[in-house]
Amino acid sequence: MATIATDQDVVTLVNVFTVSPEQQQRLADLLAEATASVMNRLPGYVSANIHRSLDGTRVVNYAQWRRVEDFEAMLRDPDAQEHMRSASKLATSIEPHLYEVVFTDQAKEVAAE
Amino acid sequence: MATIATDQDVVTLVNVFTVSPEQQQRLADLLAEATASVMNRLPGYVSANIHRSLDGTRVVNYAQWRRVEDFEAMLRDPDAQEHMRSASKLATSIEPHLYEVVFTDQAKEVAAE
Repeated sequence: MATIATDQDVVTLVNVFTVSPEQQQRLADLLAEATASVMNRLPGYVSANIHRSLDGTRVVNYAQWRRVEDFEAMLRDPDAQEHMRSASKLATSIEPHLYEVVFTDQAKEVAAE
Repeated sequence: MATIATDQDVVTLVNVFTVSPEQQQRLADLLAEATASVMNRLPGYVSANIHRSLDGTRVVNYAQWRRVEDFEAMLRDPDAQEHMRSASKLATSIEPHLYEVVFTDQAKEVAAE
């Protein structure tokens, strides 16, 4: 579970993987496994949330890190690098960008749940 | 605010807009305004969450709808269409896909907050 809000002390990675439909589930599994075995032990890790597109052509990791420096340190971690290499072999393109949340809105009946 | 979880009854739109850095804030403002004035009155709307990439080149809308049919009805709404046309004029490319959440993980100290 993760919360999206403008007042959280996090930086957000939205990483969009383009895949063939045959590889989609395998990539989603690999990202989940990388999170559970490597990423969530690294300093500054907050959350990872793996999404599979209904059309079969994308996998998105919506991940939160405490600071940009924590994300950059992850990129230099040898175990994380090994997982990222495996993921890149399953995808035809990878579009990682870091974001800040600038606006959120929620339906009233959902907020009241 | 929004919650990402595997057990929610929602479909997720991740819409990635590629922009020039000069247009990024304008597009983020336009999407926020479209949410507040049109989208959040439509049936099945759950949440919209606008993100600005730190490198200036992307805007992401992470939005939740109750069902695929609600999202498709929004695409046919004349007021929503007008906002989408304005947004497309500010972006060099738009990559909307619908997703399901298949895995989430959160740092223990965050979950306990």
